[in-house]
Parts: sequence; structure tokens; C-alpha cells
Amino acid sequence: MILVKAGGGRDLNWDGLCADIAGLRAAEPLVLVHGASTLRDEIAARLAIPVRTVVSPSGISSVYTDGEAIEVFLMAYAGLANKRLVARLLSHGVPAVGLSGVDGRLWEAAAKKDIPVLENGRTKLLRGNLTGRVEKVNAGLLRLLVDNGYVPVVCAPAISYEGEIVNTDNDLAAAVMAGALGITKMVYLFEAAGLLREAGRDDTRIPRVGREGLDEVMPFAQGRMKKKIMGVRKALESGVEAVYFGDGRIAQPLRSALAGNGTVFGGAAA
Amino acid sequence: MILVKAGGGRDLNWDGLCADIAGLRAAEPLVLVHGASTLRDEIAARLAIPVRTVVSPSGISSVYTDGEAIEVFLMAYAGLANKRLVARLLSHGVPAVGLSGVDGRLWEAAAKKDIPVLENGRTKLLRGNLTGRVEKVNAGLLRLLVDNGYVPVVCAPAISYEGEIVNTDNDLAAAVMAGALGITKMVYLFEAAGLLREAGRDDTRIPRVGREGLDEVMPFAQGRMKKKIMGVRKALESGVEAVYFGDGRIAQPLRSALAGNGTVFGGAAA
Repeated sequence: MILVKAGGGRDLNWDGLCADIAGLRAAEPLVLVHGASTLRDEIAARLAIPVRTVVSPSGISSVYTDGEAIEVFLMAYAGLANKRLVARLLSHGVPAVGLSGVDGRLWEAAAKKDIPVLENGRTKLLRGNLTGRVEKVNAGLLRLLVDNGYVPVVCAPAISYEGEIVNTDNDLAAAVMAGALGITKMVYLFEAAGLLREAGRDDTRIPRVGREGLDEVMPFAQGRMKKKIMGVRKALESGVEAVYFGDGRIAQPLRSALAGNGTVFGGAAA
Repeated sequence: MILVKAGGGRDLNWDGLCADIAGLRAAEPLVLVHGASTLRDEIAARLAIPVRTVVSPSGISSVYTDGEAIEVFLMAYAGLANKRLVARLLSHGVPAVGLSGVDGRLWEAAAKKDIPVLENGRTKLLRGNLTGRVEKVNAGLLRLLVDNGYVPVVCAPAISYEGEIVNTDNDLAAAVMAGALGITKMVYLFEAAGLLREAGRDDTRIPRVGREGLDEVMPFAQGRMKKKIMGVRKALESGVEAVYFGDGRIAQPLRSALAGNGTVFGGAAA
């Protein structure tokens, strides 16, 4: 089984991805996870709900999520982006079924109500945050769909152990899901040629990173890319054999990534 | 199997409904369809997207749906309302899975691009409408979930044969679904004591309507209630034995409706 995580950027080639899925899923079952961060930001702006980004003491940025932000999240991810992507896949002949992490407790998360954040160089505790880290996956529900020919299309939010809808990091959740499903190949598609030595310069792509090389390349990961590398680590630790980073903007984005044209982590030859 | 359609009004007792479902589903599998019209109107207002209501020559009012309206629809129904309801059911111990009519082509509809509408007493043709009438149901997907212990939580929009996301009438779609699933009992919950002889006066409730009595009570159905009576007709024609109208605002709304405290259509004694 292949797990594909497609980012939520504006320039992703969704039709190319859908066509690739339509071609590849005959040979191997497939689960798709998608983001919707650009859409989320647009809807938040239209509703005049500010997106509040916070930075952890270790320098990882994330979105602070209150009740209103969760509403925007549900509208953008589970509502608009998920169903549009499902409809697009259907039009490519792929029997897609959209699910959020809430449905059937697909993504169960440990809530992080109070989070340490850096503000003006100082660490303070921010309370009432509706985010969580996915720890448990309802693999049975996904297998039920996959075994019956469906392609699950999954997105955040998740559900906490206490039953609250919580924002969660899609990249990490996808990696946890890959482990729970016993997936061997995982693909991250986003708006760059792969992991780059220099952000924005596709000609500085790192083609291959062995299992032992993750610490080495971590300094090259800027912003959101840090979470993807953390996802790679999680996935490789959970039994995934190879993780592929690939350019989601190009023709045949999924086939190209699987052919090793982005960055390959782990893998037999690593 | 019981199919419950809960309206999208503000005053529905959702926790009472969830508790009823938690208690009843052990004895009989259950599928839930929900509306979100109040929420849809609120989000449309916040986004400054007007909700355009049109009236057919036969006097049935419906929402005219362009691309922007479909976006609001997806956000309100498939995003916010569906996932909140799923989370609420989960917190009552019900393994709910939320689906829109788009997912797995659950609700397939014949698109009605051009609709005749009454404007200032004249009939004219309105084009580009993204609505449809549900004709085909993916009963296999629903049975797959139900047979594995899940409670499907379903809402509009639907998908047209041409692959477009289309608005559809939940009440009628639920009736078509009841037929496709071979359901014997169907329940409509809304913000009234049942079918009333006089709108707004719960003491004018009609307790029982036989199969042959539908034409007789049609004149009492005002506004949205007309579509529910059309849903009743469709359901009874499709093999449903009894359709229950019930007050969704009260304690134990589902149990009360099934006990015949609202309006019972068809049924053994009718």
C-alpha cells in the first residue's frame, strides 16, 4: 500500500495527481492525505478570523487554534478541500471516499492544551489551544474501505482522547498512519523539487538521504519542511521502507516522486 | 435498519438525539441524515454571499445554487455540521462516520441546470443552477459501514452523473436512500410537534396519516414541509413501512417519534 500526503499549497497539480492515482491504484492500494492551508488562510481572511502562528522554543512554527479557528479548519479541510478533491478523483474514475481524522476516531490525538511559545524572545505558556498529536489510528476503518476498492482521502482535524475536535499536523499524522497501516512506501508532495539545500532553489535538491543521514539534513529544512523531516523520521521508525519527497507542481507528480526524481529517504539502496 | 433525517434548525436537541441513537442502535442498525440550513445561512451571511431562494411554478421554494453557494454548502454541511455531529456521537459512544453525498458517489443526482422559476408572477428559466435530484444511492458503501458497526452520518451535497458537486434536497434524498437500503422505518425530526393543521400551533398536530391520506394532508404542508411530505410519498412507494415525523426539540426526540408521538404515515394500523 502507498500513502501519499499532498500539501495544501496553491500550485499543486491536483489533476496530475488524480491521473497518477487512477493509473497506479490498480497495481497497489492507495491512501491519500491532503492539506488545505492556503484555502484555510483564505477563508479565515474572508471571515476576518486571524490565523495566529506561534513558534515553539525549538523554533517549530504552528497555528494556534481556538474554537473559531477549528471552525475555519473544518470548513476548509473537511468541507471544501476534501470534497472537491473527492469529486476530482471520482471524475478520474477513482472511487474516493473522504474522511476527516474525526470520523470513526480515524486520528486520535493527545491534546496539547497548554503550549510553550516564544514571544519576543521569551518562553511563555499559551492556554486553551485546540491542537493535538495523533497517536492512534483507526486502521480497521481504512482497511475496510481499501479492501473494498475505495481510495480513502483523509485530512485533519483529529479527535482528542477527550472527544474534542483538534487541529493536528497533517505531515506527522500521515507518518503515524503509515506505521499503523504497515505501509512500505510513503510520498510527500509539495511545492518544491524535493528537500533543498537552499530554500527556493530547486537546483540545490538533495536526491537521496540514508536512514542515518536525517540529522545531517535537518539544518536544510526551513519552516514547514521541518515537520516533514520529522514525519520522515517517524515513518522510517514505524517500518516504512522508503519515503519519497516530490514536486507536486509538475506533470505526473506522484509517478515522478516514486521514480526518485525528488528526494528519497531510506530505501533499499540507502 | 432505521433511517433518521434530522433537520438543520437551530433548536434541535442534538444531544438528546445522540443519546437516543446510542441506546437504540444496539437493537437495530441506524443511518443518520442531517441538515444544516441555519448554519449555511449564517456562514453565507458572514461571507456576504447572499442565499437566493427561488419559487417553482408549483409553489415549492428552494435555494438557487451557483459556484459560490456550493462552496458555502460544502463548508456548512460537509465541513462544520457533519464533523461536529460526528464528534458529538463519538462522545456518546456511537462509532459515527461522516460522509457527504459526494463520497464514493453516495448520492448520485440528475442535474437540473435550467430551472423554471416564478418571478413577479411570471415563469422564467434560470440557468447555471448547481442542483440535482438524487436518483442513485451507493447502498454498498453504507452497508459496508453498517455491517462493521459504524453509524453513517450523511449530508448533502450530492454528485451529478457528470461529476459536478450539486445541491440537493436532503429530505427527498433521504427517502431515496431509505428505498435503496430496504429500510422499514424512517424518521423525520424537525422543529414542530409533527405535521400540523396550522403552522406554528403544535396543538393542531395530525397524529396519523394512512397511505391513501397523503393528498388530503398536502394542503397543511407549508414551505419546507411540502418536501418532507413528498419524501414520505417517495419512501412509502419505495417499500418503507412507516414514516415518523417527530419533534426534534424535545427530550428523547427519536424515541418519542418512534413511539408515535408526532405524526405516523403508513404503518400496519393505517
